[in-house]
Amino acid sequence: MNPNEIIRKKRDQEELSKEEIEYFISEYSNGNIPDYQASSLLMAIYLNGMSQSEIAFLTGAMIKSGKTMDLSSIEGIKVDKHSTGGIGDKMSMVLLPLVAACGVPVAKMAGRGLGYTQGTIDKLESILGFKTSLSINEFIQNVKAINLSIMSQQEDIAKADKLLYALRDVTSTVESIPLIASSVMSKKIASGADKILLEVTCGSGAFIDDLDRAKMLSQIMVNIGKQYGKETVAIITNMDQPLGRFCGNSLEVMETIDTLNGKGEEDVVSLCTMFGAYMLKLAGVGDNLANNMRLIKSKIDNKEGLIKFRELLLRQGGNTYCIDHPEVLNKAKYKIPVKTPRSGYVHEINSKNIGMAVVNMGGGRQKKDDSIDHNVGIEILKKIGDHVEADDILMFIYCNDEELGRKQVKFLQDSYYIGYEEVPKIEAILDIID
Amino acid sequence: MNPNEIIRKKRDQEELSKEEIEYFISEYSNGNIPDYQASSLLMAIYLNGMSQSEIAFLTGAMIKSGKTMDLSSIEGIKVDKHSTGGIGDKMSMVLLPLVAACGVPVAKMAGRGLGYTQGTIDKLESILGFKTSLSINEFIQNVKAINLSIMSQQEDIAKADKLLYALRDVTSTVESIPLIASSVMSKKIASGADKILLEVTCGSGAFIDDLDRAKMLSQIMVNIGKQYGKETVAIITNMDQPLGRFCGNSLEVMETIDTLNGKGEEDVVSLCTMFGAYMLKLAGVGDNLANNMRLIKSKIDNKEGLIKFRELLLRQGGNTYCIDHPEVLNKAKYKIPVKTPRSGYVHEINSKNIGMAVVNMGGGRQKKDDSIDHNVGIEILKKIGDHVEADDILMFIYCNDEELGRKQVKFLQDSYYIGYEEVPKIEAILDIID
Repeated sequence: MNPNEIIRKKRDQEELSKEEIEYFISEYSNGNIPDYQASSLLMAIYLNGMSQSEIAFLTGAMIKSGKTMDLSSIEGIKVDKHSTGGIGDKMSMVLLPLVAACGVPVAKMAGRGLGYTQGTIDKLESILGFKTSLSINEFIQNVKAINLSIMSQQEDIAKADKLLYALRDVTSTVESIPLIASSVMSKKIASGADKILLEVTCGSGAFIDDLDRAKMLSQIMVNIGKQYGKETVAIITNMDQPLGRFCGNSLEVMETIDTLNGKGEEDVVSLCTMFGAYMLKLAGVGDNLANNMRLIKSKIDNKEGLIKFRELLLRQGGNTYCIDHPEVLNKAKYKIPVKTPRSGYVHEINSKNIGMAVVNMGGGRQKKDDSIDHNVGIEILKKIGDHVEADDILMFIYCNDEELGRKQVKFLQDSYYIGYEEVPKIEAILDIID
Repeated sequence: MNPNEIIRKKRDQEELSKEEIEYFISEYSNGNIPDYQASSLLMAIYLNGMSQSEIAFLTGAMIKSGKTMDLSSIEGIKVDKHSTGGIGDKMSMVLLPLVAACGVPVAKMAGRGLGYTQGTIDKLESILGFKTSLSINEFIQNVKAINLSIMSQQEDIAKADKLLYALRDVTSTVESIPLIASSVMSKKIASGADKILLEVTCGSGAFIDDLDRAKMLSQIMVNIGKQYGKETVAIITNMDQPLGRFCGNSLEVMETIDTLNGKGEEDVVSLCTMFGAYMLKLAGVGDNLANNMRLIKSKIDNKEGLIKFRELLLRQGGNTYCIDHPEVLNKAKYKIPVKTPRSGYVHEINSKNIGMAVVNMGGGRQKKDDSIDHNVGIEILKKIGDHVEADDILMFIYCNDEELGRKQVKFLQDSYYIGYEEVPKIEAILDIID
């Protein structure tokens, strides 16, 4: 087969066969097809799209390019949860202990942040001593012991996806539905869970800001899951504003503990309750979502979620002092207010810019190997629909380099659009596809 | 500036600025932008196109990426001639001596073949001793002495074009109007001629097989020429069948000599006459095309074209024995007939396949550094509109590896479509854009 001819077919809107897709992906991940041919194909896919079956073939080819995990030694139905990335999205850290506390095994492989989104692994590494690099055996043993383990994505899972993801990042081919769908689903399917719950983020802080496209992406991923015998549900969440109160690694762990302590922001709690209810349903605990939601809520009220979080830290070497004293996780040297120059109502927030401000201060990565400052971040005081008076504080910037922090003030101020008319608060969940 | 953002703009159909295009091209040719970003941009250009001004900026950026030639020491108006590539297209070898014989200086930089088209330089190198690598000084001295020199394209002219051309070849981005136009015009403008005559080939043996697209390409190139103060005329030729009788390097030189001897095929002679008339007009010899055509014709009749060809060989080290004995240029070991299985009229010829058959036998390059066998080729006996009886010979294959030659028989047979109805012969010239 000829890579050039495969590129040409996609360029000319012809459908690629299973064999062609498998050939290209396997030769690419073996180093026999160079990056410049892969990036050309990626752009052709970006602009000409892919059919549902092409996407399924691409997913399969990426699964085959690496190892697949076997979680069958863990009893029960293992449900994985994945987010397409958001701002202030600490949901995994809150949700997974709550679900585990309900007796459902949770074996979660999570990622690091790249670009304006942060990753669960980076957040958890704010906790002194917490180990995210585990052997598969340790990972499985943890789940068997306490129903919960969170580890960083294995290097050898879906190898081609890793290579392509890095290439997409530098060739403006990130925001493509077929490429996002196959990337997410190849990792999830290869990671060995039985069922999959997806958070598809949509809005100013997500890769996709159009609801129709988010629905399309969700439907495609749900279909791929079905084709692989792994029941999949996608919940489309509103990323037009950051989730919860804090953005930034360490600060989000603090908020996680507060939330598990019953002091969470309403949006975080309601999302975790809904996601938890679906995870319980997928895990076979019960089909009645209202009952499931009540069960999840009870694990906040009776602190069993927090106890599970403590067990997680104990199993993976994390210092638990922060659980009783979450304020120790707020350790940036400087706290700088960002004020609004005018009165009115918050109409829009450019959430991507809030994520970028955290990256600018060192709290995220511009390049894959950048090291990060876990302590910087932003506290959001005003959200869409809130009334503000001139000089009200919209946000606090937490930073260790005062000059760098001050540089974000104007940028962050400009990320808010304050209008005259009253507008409603936004819904956290936009749609559910199953 | 950020290459990724430039790719994104083109991907999203936004217009690129002069600065963005110059930045990308100069950084690419300096090695600071990698191939994988360039190929991604090329595919976005292929699929989303470019405006006339973007194409002009791209041309300018490619000119700036290398040296430009100064031919001003040569007296008179220097007219360059360029073809977008065809099958059996020996026009430069016939035409340029005829024009030079009319007293017009001809300083021609020509290319090698890649893929299914052959190049003038490869053809001339069939002549024993003929030197195509000249210093600029030798080149200019030759033109001053005999009004004619043909040398291989300088490595340092339009450096970015060379890199991009090689990249396009392996990323399925060859047949793009903006990329062809900027590639051709950057080389021609940087090569220092005062005026430019373009042969834009169109049909089954050309990169472009749609007349509207050929007209669009022609108009764009004519406009670019004007913007750079270099009057440009484009003649669109019909490449639905090979030009003349032979395809293959050495065989085409033989046909060139035959043509200059007054024994040329009608299509070659009529094209050379028309192209010659335009070159004379551009060079200021006279505006009356009919008169110019007569002048060119007379240079065949009185053998002054052939004399000029001999002078060219003498100046550049070529053995002139072949001029008096052109049959020595036909030196392949085997001659294999390709017959038609059925009677009727030749309706279509897949000329690209004829070019490919020559490449398959070693007469062209699959990759840039392949060496070639100058002696293999194909003789075309039947053209579109010709009547054939079953078992008539359509072509002869000339080869040095009998097995390889026999392998082409079926492929070449299938390149002819023989129909029942009579069809007219095709016109050699489809349009002229000036």
